[in-house]
Amino acid sequence: MAYRETEKMRLRKAENRQRILACAQQLVMEGGFRNAQVTQVASLAEVATGTIYRHFASKEELFAEVFRNATRREVQNVSESLAQPGDAIQRLELALTRFAQRALNRPVMAWALIAEPVDPVVEAERLQYRKAYADLFEQAIREGMSEGSIPAQDAGSSSTCLVGAIAESLVGPLSPAQGGYGEATKTINTDTLVNSIVRFCLQGLTGTGR
Amino acid sequence: MAYRETEKMRLRKAENRQRILACAQQLVMEGGFRNAQVTQVASLAEVATGTIYRHFASKEELFAEVFRNATRREVQNVSESLAQPGDAIQRLELALTRFAQRALNRPVMAWALIAEPVDPVVEAERLQYRKAYADLFEQAIREGMSEGSIPAQDAGSSSTCLVGAIAESLVGPLSPAQGGYGEATKTINTDTLVNSIVRFCLQGLTGTGR
Repeated sequence: MAYRETEKMRLRKAENRQRILACAQQLVMEGGFRNAQVTQVASLAEVATGTIYRHFASKEELFAEVFRNATRREVQNVSESLAQPGDAIQRLELALTRFAQRALNRPVMAWALIAEPVDPVVEAERLQYRKAYADLFEQAIREGMSEGSIPAQDAGSSSTCLVGAIAESLVGPLSPAQGGYGEATKTINTDTLVNSIVRFCLQGLTGTGR
Repeated sequence: MAYRETEKMRLRKAENRQRILACAQQLVMEGGFRNAQVTQVASLAEVATGTIYRHFASKEELFAEVFRNATRREVQNVSESLAQPGDAIQRLELALTRFAQRALNRPVMAWALIAEPVDPVVEAERLQYRKAYADLFEQAIREGMSEGSIPAQDAGSSSTCLVGAIAESLVGPLSPAQGGYGEATKTINTDTLVNSIVRFCLQGLTGTGR
């Protein structure tokens, strides 16, 4: 009996942890990291604030995990796009287009992940994940150079140019400074913007307008 | 007499403030924001720690001002490069090349300005200055479109692509994660890297290898 009780407690603990994470993510998606307070997370998850600190060493650790989970999904999406059929340029075009579209469709979350000023603990996660994107792009660029769809170049620096170009060009339209979260994405033509960014990126790689 | 005394105090106060800023900047240049502590600034500036808080509301305010001053010089440099003779592409090439070279020559400071995880107060300054670079590039791209050296495009999104591409592609080589501050810049060929980044950027703008 003692064992089963412990198992039950373990399960409930794991469920609580998941619910806290899900609620924290919901708050970030609604208002960015700056509007997600531990007390709000606790209230939404229907647990005491103290309970949160039994699961996470600090507020920063909680939000670093929210960041990791959300970004992992984006990295996974890029990875899946790059695994589609087609030459490297077609696959990179798909990955970059989808990344930009997803960001513009969920502007608050994308702003939080890409550019919101955050605690250094979360910012350190951000640098790591930008490296993950760059590694995926670099692999595709190398494949393109092998198959001849992309001219010879330093695949490492080009891949980071891609990450920077797409992230930075999305920051403005997503920024709360431009009329509040996602306001700008209601007035700009999203398709035109995505095309413009992706064209810059592909031209940067290939030196042709395609 | 009372007035002169006050004037003298005002001058000394201004001198102290300048010295505190210069010492804080020196520490950031040596080890990034994370290694610059208020107590060290006080020690280097030969003032009491309390004196620093008479000049700056908080540690964050002090380092935000260090950030602003250093970045303002970089923005000024880009502005001067873009004011040189030549068509827009030549001037953008000069500005991007000089920016990258300056960063790789002072890797710790550049890392601190571009990518070091920092307090949100400093990070907010960083977003503003990236906007300042983008505005300068956008102006040059518009001039290029007018004179015909740059094909028609969304100058706004292309300018942010430039800022992102150059900043992000410098992050790796400058990063402490790659063998400590500036270690990587001793082993990589700086000129090759700069050429590679600038080529990506110009190709992104023009769709040709030039």
